[in-house]
Amino acid sequence: MNRRDFSIALGALPLLSWVISAASAAGPAEAPKPKIGMLIYPGMILQDLVGPQTVFSILQADIRLVWKDRKPVMTDVGIALTANDTFDTCPPELDVLFVPGGLGGSIACMKDAEVTGFLASRGARARYVTSVCTGSLVLAAAGLLRGYQATSHWYVRDLLPLMGATLGAERVVEDRNRFTAGGVTSGIDFGLTLAARLSNDDTARRIQLLIEYDPKPPFAAGSPEGAGPALTQEILQRRAPLIASVRKEAEIAKERLGI
Amino acid sequence: MNRRDFSIALGALPLLSWVISAASAAGPAEAPKPKIGMLIYPGMILQDLVGPQTVFSILQADIRLVWKDRKPVMTDVGIALTANDTFDTCPPELDVLFVPGGLGGSIACMKDAEVTGFLASRGARARYVTSVCTGSLVLAAAGLLRGYQATSHWYVRDLLPLMGATLGAERVVEDRNRFTAGGVTSGIDFGLTLAARLSNDDTARRIQLLIEYDPKPPFAAGSPEGAGPALTQEILQRRAPLIASVRKEAEIAKERLGI
Repeated sequence: MNRRDFSIALGALPLLSWVISAASAAGPAEAPKPKIGMLIYPGMILQDLVGPQTVFSILQADIRLVWKDRKPVMTDVGIALTANDTFDTCPPELDVLFVPGGLGGSIACMKDAEVTGFLASRGARARYVTSVCTGSLVLAAAGLLRGYQATSHWYVRDLLPLMGATLGAERVVEDRNRFTAGGVTSGIDFGLTLAARLSNDDTARRIQLLIEYDPKPPFAAGSPEGAGPALTQEILQRRAPLIASVRKEAEIAKERLGI
Repeated sequence: MNRRDFSIALGALPLLSWVISAASAAGPAEAPKPKIGMLIYPGMILQDLVGPQTVFSILQADIRLVWKDRKPVMTDVGIALTANDTFDTCPPELDVLFVPGGLGGSIACMKDAEVTGFLASRGARARYVTSVCTGSLVLAAAGLLRGYQATSHWYVRDLLPLMGATLGAERVVEDRNRFTAGGVTSGIDFGLTLAARLSNDDTARRIQLLIEYDPKPPFAAGSPEGAGPALTQEILQRRAPLIASVRKEAEIAKERLGI
């Protein structure tokens, strides 16, 4: 079943067509679908990808999951993904280049010249270079955040300046064509923010209403400030070995980038 | 690679072990992992599943994706899922029975006696019977929400009373052991709420900080009230044929349930 048949089966096509035609009404009459390349990799966090992918999918973007090969890639929750494109077949000109997080897997990507080389080549030409969670560490290791404000998961974001970025304060940090977001669930905020740029605010609002994004977290513990120092320190202590590994990779990248 | 090897590869196991041992410290010394059966079906919305699954996965729950067979099941974003258990192999006693949404697919499930029969059998014995988005329509068609407060995606939630439920006002509606949540993104709020019941508040807070759930939606359009009547009416009008189909199925279920 191809995507069009699937959308019809879902009963979603009339609505999707209308969302996109509403977007087109405010822009060029025959706006092409935005071409979005989303990196996938072993050990990635599936939520980091699915949040923005859900938004871009309603926007009827041309979404490609991209990896070195088409072997199944295992994610944190035990669901395997398969790439639609390899590094070789991924179009050279993307509207959006996106990297999800997943700390162990992100470290492996930071030290993999094939991955950073692919990101550097597509990132140099993409309209938007973007990430959620520790995906920004991979972008930075590819030299793509040098001289830009950026963010990452709260427990590693202070490592970004090692690779030439300035730490931004927001949940979604926008600096020229770089959009980087905080940990895991920030992908929904990021997706809607970028959807507004790719189309317009009204289309992004329509998507937000369709996915009923009116969050009511049961606790106020979603940030170090909200969770308090005790809980924050506990997590930092438990994550210390992994944070030390990513710091080491960031320092190696700093040398390589000549920063 | 099995789940344990994968967790080690991800560098996540030490943290996960600590999350669960922190949970255990407040409860029985050797609390067994909660057994969670999550229905998957063609046309489902992947975000509805992945939000709570991410939370339950950090809680180290024993998560099983369940469907009629092990053929790939296509989701809204073009990612296929494969069941770990069929209706036959799914354990009879679940701690949590969960149903995601996906309107076209939900309608197909409401009229499928094999699906509603499976849900009724597991739902009668599960500690918690739960859903996100239009998953509650499927639970209701299986007779599992009769006499309970419940909710669903905003554009179809008023159909729940046809099948014997009372409409609740919250984003996550909890009535005895039934937990139903609003559209799509409410699955994260639901997952954290249920994680607190399955373990304790501190463990849920820890997970919330790990997934950095400190939402900052770029617009206030996530509910009909926030989006305003014009946008809401536009969506209701576009979705009218699909809403009419689900109303028809709800009325058939009402007859079948003798309500």
